[in-house]
Amino acid sequence: MKIDTLTIVGVGLIGGSIGLAAKRRGLVGRIHGVGRTQDNLDVALRAGAIDSGSLDLVDKMEQADLVVFCTPVDRIAEQVLAAAPCCKPGALLTDAGSTKAEIVRRVENDLPARVSFVGSHPLAGSEKRGAEYADAGLFQNRLAVVTPTPRTKAEAVTHTRAFWEALGSRVKVMSPEDHDRALAFTSHVPHLLASALAGALPADLFELTATGFRDTTRVAAGDPELWTAIFAANRTAMLDALSSVSGRLDEFRRAIDTRDWTTIDALLAHARKVRHALGS
Amino acid sequence: MKIDTLTIVGVGLIGGSIGLAAKRRGLVGRIHGVGRTQDNLDVALRAGAIDSGSLDLVDKMEQADLVVFCTPVDRIAEQVLAAAPCCKPGALLTDAGSTKAEIVRRVENDLPARVSFVGSHPLAGSEKRGAEYADAGLFQNRLAVVTPTPRTKAEAVTHTRAFWEALGSRVKVMSPEDHDRALAFTSHVPHLLASALAGALPADLFELTATGFRDTTRVAAGDPELWTAIFAANRTAMLDALSSVSGRLDEFRRAIDTRDWTTIDALLAHARKVRHALGS
Repeated sequence: MKIDTLTIVGVGLIGGSIGLAAKRRGLVGRIHGVGRTQDNLDVALRAGAIDSGSLDLVDKMEQADLVVFCTPVDRIAEQVLAAAPCCKPGALLTDAGSTKAEIVRRVENDLPARVSFVGSHPLAGSEKRGAEYADAGLFQNRLAVVTPTPRTKAEAVTHTRAFWEALGSRVKVMSPEDHDRALAFTSHVPHLLASALAGALPADLFELTATGFRDTTRVAAGDPELWTAIFAANRTAMLDALSSVSGRLDEFRRAIDTRDWTTIDALLAHARKVRHALGS
Repeated sequence: MKIDTLTIVGVGLIGGSIGLAAKRRGLVGRIHGVGRTQDNLDVALRAGAIDSGSLDLVDKMEQADLVVFCTPVDRIAEQVLAAAPCCKPGALLTDAGSTKAEIVRRVENDLPARVSFVGSHPLAGSEKRGAEYADAGLFQNRLAVVTPTPRTKAEAVTHTRAFWEALGSRVKVMSPEDHDRALAFTSHVPHLLASALAGALPADLFELTATGFRDTTRVAAGDPELWTAIFAANRTAMLDALSSVSGRLDEFRRAIDTRDWTTIDALLAHARKVRHALGS
């Protein structure tokens, strides 16, 4: 796969890492970055993640063969729709947002026919922000989910899949709705649990935390604004997944309350089996 | 501090690490280990964590100046009470159990006056088990909690504190009950949450987990038997801490349900502030 001009909208950790990975793997002729602030663009330029930068979304947009939107999930759909009219015919647009159904629905409702959009979500990231943490190996051996709908052109899916594979990822194709139900469980509710635990900790106990507490709450260091947008975009699936985890919490609580240690042992043994299956 | 003979009862990850740390720092003349199986003793001997080993708790117990019990929390009190009558006058006994109130209460009720016992809990460990993972640096810069009661001799507290400090730890002195209330929050309930989350994950979603899920659930890989005993020993404090975390979870749930994104943002911002205060 070879892309003449790649445009990355949002030059933070993910956008910057896409730029570095695409360059290291020789996928692109040149990379143009669109940033929210000149500072962000300067960091991405210094990191070598982009070749040129602009604060204006549609500046040079007509040159892009592939545009990847790496902005917060509540910005992606409007930016795709604002950029699309300026794109050349046949341009492919995708994104890296953590939620998919709402974005894909809004984009598909209004996208001009001469460009294509396919939703993507690379399952890679960090609680850190900014292109200063960009990493050319971020997508290596990670899963990228690509979320076409019945309206998506087959060729656009093929190219989007090839792009993530060229960055080193394995690709899984799912519907946007299946993606959101899955990620509610594997990412959004874990973020909520970690934040509830960290947020409930009394200040006089900070010094009594050790590696276990720090691991369990690590994701709670993520950016509140980004995560509020994710929670809002995936509200229904999150409430469902939360209800399932809360049911399991209630089983634990009842068993502790009634001193049913056989059940506690069985619940912990099952959890350990699952955790072992996930690897370190 | 110099100990002629140190006896370590329970030669797993913690007991083995105590042995290695005591040797590396030149604290001890010799170390005798008591194991549950010959295999465990052989691993600890090969790791250099002990100089001699026995399956019999009281074998050579009369030689020990300091005895550290590193067995599961539901075994410690009975082992201390079984060992004490065989100890030399003035011997100091302590432990490394994750719960304290029940152990200290049972030991103090029946301990012969010619030996001393002080509860300890080094906040160090891992989801791994066995002396093959023992690490001479495990206690370095970690907190060790020492839990005397009004009945504990001041000299015994001084010596126990000096022992953990000599292994590289900072020491905090708390009552056994305060320790258990704190650790319910900082360790036992996090273990429960991680296990509820891992245990509720449907098998078809395993492949859609990434580093966030794995961090949040890492402690769920711990040994179910050990943790059931911890839950049982700290039942009341765990129910209290769980109720506090559940209250915070309900705040999140209500805010998502009512689309109150301002509250979600505030809850996440507070959690991030706490998480940042804890360090990486």
